[in-house]
Amino acid sequence: MDTLAQAVGNSIAGHRRLLDLTQQEVADRAGVSQKYISALERGERIPNLDTLDQIAGALGVPIRDLLPEAVVTEDAA
Amino acid sequence: MDTLAQAVGNSIAGHRRLLDLTQQEVADRAGVSQKYISALERGERIPNLDTLDQIAGALGVPIRDLLPEAVVTEDAA
Repeated sequence: MDTLAQAVGNSIAGHRRLLDLTQQEVADRAGVSQKYISALERGERIPNLDTLDQIAGALGVPIRDLLPEAVVTEDAA
Repeated sequence: MDTLAQAVGNSIAGHRRLLDLTQQEVADRAGVSQKYISALERGERIPNLDTLDQIAGALGVPIRDLLPEAVVTEDAA
C-alpha cells in the first residue's frame, strides 16, 4: 500500500466529513468524478498537485492541509 | 503561469540552496533527471505527489514544506 496515498485519502475524507459533504458534492466542486474522489479516499489513486489543489479548493483548505505533517516515506533499513 | 507550480518550484529551489546542493544532486537522490528538477524549479512542470514526495525526501523535509501555506488558486471574481 502507498502510505502517502492513504494519508492523503484519509485527509480528504476527514475534511469532507467535517463539512458534511458527499463525495459527489466534492467531485462537482472540484471538477472531477465521484469515482475518482472515492478512489482517492481509499488510497488507490494518488493525485497530481493541480488536481489536489482543486480538491483542496472544494474543501476550503490550503493544499498543505491535505498532506501529512511528517515524512511518510521511510527508507528500508 | 501556474501559481501553484511556481510556488512549489520556488520551495524546491529554496530548500536545495539551503542545503547547498546542485540540481543534479537532488535529482540523483530523488531518482529523477536534472532537467526535470530544473523545469520544476522554473514552475514549468507540476509534479505528482509521489514524485514530490521523493524530492521532499531528497531535501530532508516533509512534503508539506514544499507547498504553499495559503490557498494559491483564486477564483476569478
